[in-house]
Amino acid sequence: MQRRGLLIILSSPSGAGKSTLAGRLRKWDESLRFSVSATTRAPRAGEVDGKDYFFVTTAAFQAQVAAGEMLEHARVFDNYYGSPKGPVQAAINEGRDVLFDIDWQGAQQISKSALSEHVLSIFILPPSIPELHRRLISRGQDDAETIERRMQKSWDEISHWDGYDYVMVNDDLDVTEERLKTIISAERLRASQQPDLMSHVRNLQAQFEDR
Amino acid sequence: MQRRGLLIILSSPSGAGKSTLAGRLRKWDESLRFSVSATTRAPRAGEVDGKDYFFVTTAAFQAQVAAGEMLEHARVFDNYYGSPKGPVQAAINEGRDVLFDIDWQGAQQISKSALSEHVLSIFILPPSIPELHRRLISRGQDDAETIERRMQKSWDEISHWDGYDYVMVNDDLDVTEERLKTIISAERLRASQQPDLMSHVRNLQAQFEDR
Repeated sequence: MQRRGLLIILSSPSGAGKSTLAGRLRKWDESLRFSVSATTRAPRAGEVDGKDYFFVTTAAFQAQVAAGEMLEHARVFDNYYGSPKGPVQAAINEGRDVLFDIDWQGAQQISKSALSEHVLSIFILPPSIPELHRRLISRGQDDAETIERRMQKSWDEISHWDGYDYVMVNDDLDVTEERLKTIISAERLRASQQPDLMSHVRNLQAQFEDR
Repeated sequence: MQRRGLLIILSSPSGAGKSTLAGRLRKWDESLRFSVSATTRAPRAGEVDGKDYFFVTTAAFQAQVAAGEMLEHARVFDNYYGSPKGPVQAAINEGRDVLFDIDWQGAQQISKSALSEHVLSIFILPPSIPELHRRLISRGQDDAETIERRMQKSWDEISHWDGYDYVMVNDDLDVTEERLKTIISAERLRASQQPDLMSHVRNLQAQFEDR
């Protein structure tokens, strides 16, 4: 029997280190797939279509939602974001775990979906608000108004920390990375994640009866 | 707020390596408490009262059960076994995790008790029945009839593998030890196991409002 892959959801306010951590996890385990979100927002400098996001029109996005092809979707500011279902379904059917970098709205939708029993949800908190603010400013991309809007969105995100399986404060990237690896490794050891156990027990039964 | 300790249940047929593994876990983490079972069976050579078991009379055992002082109890062959509630309650109230070396009947009782949300249950399967048989014989303590009775009990135990959170085949003690450490470490990172998170989020909120 083929193992069904896990849906590993990583949420956090922007500036808490999530992207760096996601990158480290992918380096740690190359079998891990990354769910590329679809979005209606315009690409930023350097962003690659199909790698950073699938950049789509609002009409195309809404058509995918209507066709039930989005695992989750949400509107953030003036844009839509969503996780296309097809690639995720293909990966987990092959037994590969899929990493999602999505917000609390998406996390809630996936946690209530038909795939909920395969979900592992993790929230990463920043050490402090001044530190979060500093990290948002240090990107040097945004004006004061945009940064304030992001701070408000960050707080909205933080206020939903409570619905996640695991929550950790990212004081130290190396420590947080190790914790994430421990959590994913443990989840893979769950009885429900090891279909081979059933055949092992059947072998034991045959051996017991044949004594 | 004080963290509530975990109840870590380790079950397996005898001969699957459980006692060795429990010993290694206690060496790994000295804060781990071990739940000493009460039993009505006679002490074997070398067994120490209060360390290996609490050796009690049947009347005393039944009085403890009647007084609700046993977290779980079961009859195995002609003897009673049970886990006294007092020491466990004291340890978990102090935030210490408690390791239980109990069978499936006890595991089911604790998993259905008021403490169920703090339970982490792990089942250890032997690599094969001939190997299990060999390990039972190699103790050199028991006659053929006793060994056969233990084999029957072992199979009864194995047949209940399915109700545990985690199940693993003990092919290699070092690998199994690492897996147990990973599982316990991950469980300690669960949001529900970290009462400090709540005050961290309160601090973040105060910082956000004070900007």
